Amino acid sequence: MHEHDMVIKNGSVVFPYVGVQKTDIGIKNGKISAIGADIAADSAKQVLDATDRYVFPGAVDSHFHVGIYRPLAEDAVSESTSAASGGVTTILSYFRTGQDYLNKVGPFKEILPELLEISEKSFLTDFGYHIACMTDGHLEEIEWLVTQGGVSTLKYYMFYKLLTLAGATPEAKNYLMIDNPVDFGYLYRYMQEVARVNRLYRQYGTISLSVHCENPEVIQATQAAVKANPSGVPMKDYSNARPPWQEELAINEVAIMAKYADCPINLLHLSSQKAVEAGTDVTERYPQVSFLMEGTLHHLGLSNDMDLDQTAKVNPPIRSGADVEFLWQALMDNRLKTVVSDHACPPLKRKDGDLWTCMPGFGGTSLMFPVLITEGYHKRGMPLHRIAEVNSANPARYHNLYPKKGAVMVGSDADFAIVDIDAEKQITLESLYTAQEFSPELGMKYKGWPDITVLRGQIIFKNGQIVGKPGNGQFIKRPVKLHYT
Amino acid sequence: MHEHDMVIKNGSVVFPYVGVQKTDIGIKNGKISAIGADIAADSAKQVLDATDRYVFPGAVDSHFHVGIYRPLAEDAVSESTSAASGGVTTILSYFRTGQDYLNKVGPFKEILPELLEISEKSFLTDFGYHIACMTDGHLEEIEWLVTQGGVSTLKYYMFYKLLTLAGATPEAKNYLMIDNPVDFGYLYRYMQEVARVNRLYRQYGTISLSVHCENPEVIQATQAAVKANPSGVPMKDYSNARPPWQEELAINEVAIMAKYADCPINLLHLSSQKAVEAGTDVTERYPQVSFLMEGTLHHLGLSNDMDLDQTAKVNPPIRSGADVEFLWQALMDNRLKTVVSDHACPPLKRKDGDLWTCMPGFGGTSLMFPVLITEGYHKRGMPLHRIAEVNSANPARYHNLYPKKGAVMVGSDADFAIVDIDAEKQITLESLYTAQEFSPELGMKYKGWPDITVLRGQIIFKNGQIVGKPGNGQFIKRPVKLHYT
Amino acid sequence: MHEHDMVIKNGSVVFPYVGVQKTDIGIKNGKISAIGADIAADSAKQVLDATDRYVFPGAVDSHFHVGIYRPLAEDAVSESTSAASGGVTTILSYFRTGQDYLNKVGPFKEILPELLEISEKSFLTDFGYHIACMTDGHLEEIEWLVTQGGVSTLKYYMFYKLLTLAGATPEAKNYLMIDNPVDFGYLYRYMQEVARVNRLYRQYGTISLSVHCENPEVIQATQAAVKANPSGVPMKDYSNARPPWQEELAINEVAIMAKYADCPINLLHLSSQKAVEAGTDVTERYPQVSFLMEGTLHHLGLSNDMDLDQTAKVNPPIRSGADVEFLWQALMDNRLKTVVSDHACPPLKRKDGDLWTCMPGFGGTSLMFPVLITEGYHKRGMPLHRIAEVNSANPARYHNLYPKKGAVMVGSDADFAIVDIDAEKQITLESLYTAQEFSPELGMKYKGWPDITVLRGQIIFKNGQIVGKPGNGQFIKRPVKLHYT
Amino acid sequence: MHEHDMVIKNGSVVFPYVGVQKTDIGIKNGKISAIGADIAADSAKQVLDATDRYVFPGAVDSHFHVGIYRPLAEDAVSESTSAASGGVTTILSYFRTGQDYLNKVGPFKEILPELLEISEKSFLTDFGYHIACMTDGHLEEIEWLVTQGGVSTLKYYMFYKLLTLAGATPEAKNYLMIDNPVDFGYLYRYMQEVARVNRLYRQYGTISLSVHCENPEVIQATQAAVKANPSGVPMKDYSNARPPWQEELAINEVAIMAKYADCPINLLHLSSQKAVEAGTDVTERYPQVSFLMEGTLHHLGLSNDMDLDQTAKVNPPIRSGADVEFLWQALMDNRLKTVVSDHACPPLKRKDGDLWTCMPGFGGTSLMFPVLITEGYHKRGMPLHRIAEVNSANPARYHNLYPKKGAVMVGSDADFAIVDIDAEKQITLESLYTAQEFSPELGMKYKGWPDITVLRGQIIFKNGQIVGKPGNGQFIKRPVKLHYT
Repeated sequence: MHEHDMVIKNGSVVFPYVGVQKTDIGIKNGKISAIGADIAADSAKQVLDATDRYVFPGAVDSHFHVGIYRPLAEDAVSESTSAASGGVTTILSYFRTGQDYLNKVGPFKEILPELLEISEKSFLTDFGYHIACMTDGHLEEIEWLVTQGGVSTLKYYMFYKLLTLAGATPEAKNYLMIDNPVDFGYLYRYMQEVARVNRLYRQYGTISLSVHCENPEVIQATQAAVKANPSGVPMKDYSNARPPWQEELAINEVAIMAKYADCPINLLHLSSQKAVEAGTDVTERYPQVSFLMEGTLHHLGLSNDMDLDQTAKVNPPIRSGADVEFLWQALMDNRLKTVVSDHACPPLKRKDGDLWTCMPGFGGTSLMFPVLITEGYHKRGMPLHRIAEVNSANPARYHNLYPKKGAVMVGSDADFAIVDIDAEKQITLESLYTAQEFSPELGMKYKGWPDITVLRGQIIFKNGQIVGKPGNGQFIKRPVKLHYT
Repeated sequence: MHEHDMVIKNGSVVFPYVGVQKTDIGIKNGKISAIGADIAADSAKQVLDATDRYVFPGAVDSHFHVGIYRPLAEDAVSESTSAASGGVTTILSYFRTGQDYLNKVGPFKEILPELLEISEKSFLTDFGYHIACMTDGHLEEIEWLVTQGGVSTLKYYMFYKLLTLAGATPEAKNYLMIDNPVDFGYLYRYMQEVARVNRLYRQYGTISLSVHCENPEVIQATQAAVKANPSGVPMKDYSNARPPWQEELAINEVAIMAKYADCPINLLHLSSQKAVEAGTDVTERYPQVSFLMEGTLHHLGLSNDMDLDQTAKVNPPIRSGADVEFLWQALMDNRLKTVVSDHACPPLKRKDGDLWTCMPGFGGTSLMFPVLITEGYHKRGMPLHRIAEVNSANPARYHNLYPKKGAVMVGSDADFAIVDIDAEKQITLESLYTAQEFSPELGMKYKGWPDITVLRGQIIFKNGQIVGKPGNGQFIKRPVKLHYT
Repeated sequence: MHEHDMVIKNGSVVFPYVGVQKTDIGIKNGKISAIGADIAADSAKQVLDATDRYVFPGAVDSHFHVGIYRPLAEDAVSESTSAASGGVTTILSYFRTGQDYLNKVGPFKEILPELLEISEKSFLTDFGYHIACMTDGHLEEIEWLVTQGGVSTLKYYMFYKLLTLAGATPEAKNYLMIDNPVDFGYLYRYMQEVARVNRLYRQYGTISLSVHCENPEVIQATQAAVKANPSGVPMKDYSNARPPWQEELAINEVAIMAKYADCPINLLHLSSQKAVEAGTDVTERYPQVSFLMEGTLHHLGLSNDMDLDQTAKVNPPIRSGADVEFLWQALMDNRLKTVVSDHACPPLKRKDGDLWTCMPGFGGTSLMFPVLITEGYHKRGMPLHRIAEVNSANPARYHNLYPKKGAVMVGSDADFAIVDIDAEKQITLESLYTAQEFSPELGMKYKGWPDITVLRGQIIFKNGQIVGKPGNGQFIKRPVKLHYT
Repeated sequence: MHEHDMVIKNGSVVFPYVGVQKTDIGIKNGKISAIGADIAADSAKQVLDATDRYVFPGAVDSHFHVGIYRPLAEDAVSESTSAASGGVTTILSYFRTGQDYLNKVGPFKEILPELLEISEKSFLTDFGYHIACMTDGHLEEIEWLVTQGGVSTLKYYMFYKLLTLAGATPEAKNYLMIDNPVDFGYLYRYMQEVARVNRLYRQYGTISLSVHCENPEVIQATQAAVKANPSGVPMKDYSNARPPWQEELAINEVAIMAKYADCPINLLHLSSQKAVEAGTDVTERYPQVSFLMEGTLHHLGLSNDMDLDQTAKVNPPIRSGADVEFLWQALMDNRLKTVVSDHACPPLKRKDGDLWTCMPGFGGTSLMFPVLITEGYHKRGMPLHRIAEVNSANPARYHNLYPKKGAVMVGSDADFAIVDIDAEKQITLESLYTAQEFSPELGMKYKGWPDITVLRGQIIFKNGQIVGKPGNGQFIKRPVKLHYT
């Protein structure tokens, strides 16, 4: 019998928080079994040669929207494939009731099993869900979600108060198929309940509330002003219609409530200097509150100074080049703690119509390493181990997957992205391994691509070929410290 | 011919910002004509002996609600009488369209003349109005209000978004007789227009927006929680139903928007430590914004540690004794700049019913000096000239009446409250000279009462007798520097 | 008998904190006896026509060094003459033992009477002294100084630790004729004693310590660096030799000690943006400490971007034009509370030699109004009543002369500067009425000059003629609330 | 040939920044060669069984004073033995010229080789030096120290300005055998030079200046006050003689200078709440400056509420129990980054005499794990991997030893402390393995002791026996990234 199932030899291993070290890695039963200067090739059934490659812990893409615009089963297959091609080995996707997604309402005790049943047949990568409670009844399920459901992170969408996803109509409640308001009163009660459950279970990991911080009432006024007097540059108009200062406003609103509710907060997809400064400011003003600040690949990789059409519409909007530069500084000085894709793929036809009614969002999960290595490491000198922190160790930690995921440690899941940091490629639709029919990044060049992805010791992507199968992925119950011994 | 129409002799004159000085004051044609160590008694037609008395500038009560719950003509007579008895010589009252008040909607160009016509026949004191724009059409009238209407201060009520005055029903729009929302989008556009007009006319005085800062969405949640689990002490329940932290939240919301709209803000009736600290905090964080912080007589004079019934319901609520003490410190260290009555008198029958549906508000204008002198001067050592600042010079300044009102200076209007700071009286309904059928202060003792009130050289109240007549009062067009030479 | 000794008619009177008002002023027995719209000319023995003139309260120049470089008797005559010509009616001068001044050491109980005896024969203006304690024995005299000596403000010179006035030699102790160190240990004990006396007498006025904040240890290093590599522009070299950041350092040092000693502090002659920001910062960080921030005429009127020779050497140095602009903003937004001359006149021969050894300091008291009116009112729109605050009412208040001095109020001393704000003059030595043989301002033009100065009802300067006599001035014992009824 | 020289089996390995994991460790040629779930026992020459033990990275004690009070050769042997017994595998000791230490003055180019020659024969543990420049000539050697000398961290002692070590006499310069002052001027030039060298070499690691922040001028005054009026409790008197606020003052002084010199600072041995708050405050106020905040074992383990005699005298002094509690919170919330012993052993006879003249300092290096595990882990729930951060990974990082030292990573030096976290022992002199004849901790009980210490793969301490020999230790040249490939 072999001592290891697989050994990854001769690579430079990227240890989050620690640094890069040339060393071999042994894998047994899907877990890391050894880290050694020279693990004998014949000690393993299979040898992966990583000469001239960097061995990163598999990325944890902690902001994803699988099944939002297309049938879940289909979308999970195609988009977890895209993830796998990009070195992502775990996806944490958002889910809510109402239109789109499963197009259902009801208790999560009933809907979650259905969601998981479909998911388990479809994902190539491991996965989990953040859940958005939409009703009072949902709030009562939070403790069950944590202890039974394996869901330890929740979400609140500020904009649904008045706006649908597209931001076009006030019929949000119909769209959400609910009766109750989506307002600060509901949010406060939501925070109180998350806080209560957090106090009970925080020894296993922080139970937190993710918030999309934009103020829809302000947006209605600012969007109307831009619509009345457009510049004609769509992504600038869209950014002005939802200006950064309303992110600042919304972040302050959420932070003050969180202070009084004692609720841990994940500030999602901070798009602008003002948003990051607001996040920093509330973190300093309210040290008793746990705030996590998240950045996205598209806010780091795209700016509205580029020539973008309305397929790049996303909420919050793509901002200016100066904002992009500020986000990179905030990432490098450790204010932004996680980088995510916020992957959500509308059919191209839902990107049609006018700027104000077409769907927001687009995919990006497969660019997790290319964007961070090109723009971070090559262009701005971000150390590789910091990249592994923001796309793997930190998301795993803050979302209660650590050290099962996100750690290069004996006993952790053997999830790896083996990356050629010097490989250069131009973006084509094929290179994204997605069902999405468009991409704002088409034609752009990135340097730094994974060529092998390993999930729990199994190769799922290699040299351009998808090797994994739908159903390879497992649902990871969180907090892992509660659900796994 | 006499050199003066009247001379006030032998009094200790209270000069705001300066101090107290024994000196005589001569009056001619309604204005101060001389300030002199010894003005000859025979130089004046009439001599008022102020031996052992303090001669304050007449108070400017800059937060008032005349005509809100009773017919304007009636209410203006009875409540400006109450004011006159309390040494108040100018009232600035809030006015809006919709139910209560004149029960009308429409443009202010039409309604303001009607309002003034009634008012001019009714007031014993001078008066002006702050106006609350409720519709887009109203926003377009702001410049007219300033330049033609004599109204240079505006108002926004956050709570009308969801709540009526009583805080009981969501039918706010019907109550207001409007179609448009009362939300942050409207508020932002409102601020932008106030800001624009301010930039045009600020050399004559700051054009500002007064905001009642409470967050109605939060209140719906917190009030429901208290209703579900009341303590039975009505004023504590009511305070918990609208907790101080939602004032803090609302103040932050307003302040951030004001920063981006460039709009001067008057933070009304700060009731609690948290509210004042929030006001201080935003003042320091956003030094480019002009913030004015207002205190009220009832938040300074009453606490819910006292034995109060639901007639003391008011928005924001009466707070704890610790809050009261904090407000006094904030007043004495010059953070609170003005003290007002927020006088509003519901009929006793509208104070009936349950705590949650009865009307908020009560009168207090006649206690302007008793509260400040008893609790400020006697109990906490607040200098008398500081009292004249907070109840006369500052409100006059910040609301564009200065130096016509609020100054003891040759050429200013001869408005005075001649006060016996050692007179002690127990509150009875009669002592308030109001039509209000109740008072939370009944039975309390105060030390420091006006015995003579002089309006533009005319005695309107003397030794317990109302001498003035309805119609004595004049509408003061603001900014006075624009409307009077 | 006439009702008034004098009446000033038809002037625009500048009331500090209040505004400007056309009104007449009556004077009797050296005090203001009436302020009246129209005081009959025949009611007074003497009429001063102030048509087209502004009647300011006489300036209180609260930072002065009489007798420092020349015999006190001589210097007090010539330099109080200069002050009188400039509308200054009260001088507060600094005094210490050691070389220069009276060239003596010993207890103030012995030296103060001698100082006052000479002074009383010499001054044309009223005067007082701030005293710098140099020894442990002096500290024990502080309470006597306040209660008997009429001196309620003290001083500490940080630089004497290592430097003489010229900053050239370490022989500071010989120069001061003392044995004890001048260091933070002494300063701390000094602050503790000022604080103790302040707690006893603060009801009569704050007993405070003025500190010249520069760090001599740093200066030794930075000056050596500049001397080794001079630019050749003397005032830039001198500024770099004592850079603004060491003011920031020294202010922080003093502020932290004051926090723990509980001692009120007067931060003298803030010369730079960094100094003012440091003063603002410590004021906000330590709200429990009373800080006063002082500006000088030369730091407001001169910059090292001008063509200045080494006669403009002063400590702290003349700074850049950007610093000057910042100081004006700080003055206008009320951070700097007082403006002073720091008048000190070395003989021209002591301005000889090299930049590093020649004497610092020069006169400026006669430019009190020209600088503030030209640069403040005409150029930057500073209101006239604010000028009266910073050069009269505030210095009087903070140094315990108010309301005897600094107030235009019946009963206050009848001290006035009657100013023609449109008169334009070019600086000559004659125009300064000083014994100083040079001036950095020679040839500069200012607009806004006093043409009459009145001290306690007596004209001491009129239309270019000095009318007052040495000995006209009185010693004003402070706090006036303790020493005068 | 064996694959490994040694394997440590069955232990729970403590990975800094990551967590604890049961895993085996292989060692080859003094370095970690493998980390594996199950490394075969027969793959190694030697097997160390760590069942029921925690395997920490060897501690890096980055504040030490070897040879200060006793001959270096002797002291290095005995005190590195004490360190080895306590799981410390690397010592960074401070060194300066002047009395004590080598009792010499002169250039470091001459003295450092001599220092290293003695050291290399004496140390049982690896070691390095921080160097305190005392003269202008020394400043010119800084770049040489970094590039040739293997010394990348410098030191400044504020108190030597006026005080000797004992704080008793002003003869500091004689003691230091120097002519130049030790003052802010020198410090500023010192910082400028450290900053310059840092800018040149920071890609290899931050070149920083460690500062002992106490203000000797203030201490002279505060100590005199306590001496004049002692309480009789020696450690309270000593704390009051050097009160925490003068640490706050000194930290602010240093921070402001560092801001202008652009110099990275290590704030040494923060003893009190005020010191830590000052460190936190300057870190926030001056984000452009790199500040490191250090805690010591004795300030974390001892308080002057305990019954301590004057052998516990140390600078800064032992503080109150409340301060101790605050330091623990600051350590646990990551404000204090390193924990050190500040080990310095005077002969008992130099602890004699009165409180004010006896020597400060005492040993503690052998208590590195007992204090942190007892007071941190057992009593306050500090995670074990955080302990490895503060006593190994962080000191290694901030002092440029990482990842050669401080990392449990393949390729790093195989330095380990194998700890029984449940072992309980009472302190005796024998248990400290020191030549020191006393200890303030005698009789105290701690729970959590190392039983094996491994240095570069060699056991140097095992089960109470010292196994290593003088000369086992190597001088580690820093930055390791510059000096080792």
